[in-house]
Amino acid sequence: MQQQIAVITIGIDDLERSKRFYGDGFGWEPVFENEEIAFYQMNGLVLGTWLSSALCEDMQRPSSGDNRAPLALAHNVQKKVDVEPLMDALVVAGGTLLRAAEAPPHGGFRGYVADPDGHAWEIAWNPAWLIDAQGHVTFKA
Amino acid sequence: MQQQIAVITIGIDDLERSKRFYGDGFGWEPVFENEEIAFYQMNGLVLGTWLSSALCEDMQRPSSGDNRAPLALAHNVQKKVDVEPLMDALVVAGGTLLRAAEAPPHGGFRGYVADPDGHAWEIAWNPAWLIDAQGHVTFKA
Repeated sequence: MQQQIAVITIGIDDLERSKRFYGDGFGWEPVFENEEIAFYQMNGLVLGTWLSSALCEDMQRPSSGDNRAPLALAHNVQKKVDVEPLMDALVVAGGTLLRAAEAPPHGGFRGYVADPDGHAWEIAWNPAWLIDAQGHVTFKA
Repeated sequence: MQQQIAVITIGIDDLERSKRFYGDGFGWEPVFENEEIAFYQMNGLVLGTWLSSALCEDMQRPSSGDNRAPLALAHNVQKKVDVEPLMDALVVAGGTLLRAAEAPPHGGFRGYVADPDGHAWEIAWNPAWLIDAQGHVTFKA
């Protein structure tokens, strides 16, 4: 089976608020949007931001009402000095700081910001991992 | 800012149980593992499965103890007939059926299975979206 994730769909409560976070914070532009969903073309996969009510109906599993799941999405930047300005921009765009940027034991530099719906994003500089011009990321120990 | 997700890290409670699900169910092989984490090289990004206690400590946000967040990861298959056998294999490998496969209003064919830690996976056939040989997925409305 291909080691492939086609889509990450995150549930949101307010599409305009979410679009401000991803648009003003990350600077990302949707490839498609309607009144209940926005899709972003990412690095070989798609990010979907869909009204939680619709996503939970689609999954046939009600939400616990608490988005604090142990799950984090990470966006890696090219330089250590890029981490903090992006985290600051995400907070200005409606995110919530979870952990200020610092060096973890395994190296690099990272912090965490939750999006307006509580989904956690790690913003990281990891010099070991190659990121190509298309944003494709290759693991390296 | 590059439209890029470098890593999806999902919190797990039992690494061996999780490896059985991803290994026996999806047939995926880790590119790296130690006693608390396994990394899988995916299509231009990395999937990390990390002990929830360590991930939540890293995020500095305790888990709610309920992984039923409104968030779904999707794996897309090449053919409609591939959806149900994969879902069956995931359940045999320790997953929980959330929604049996059927055709959604927007077309294609999909169902949902939760992994042993409660993280939701959509298994989908979407004939509109191109998947190349490296598993890179391109959005198409």
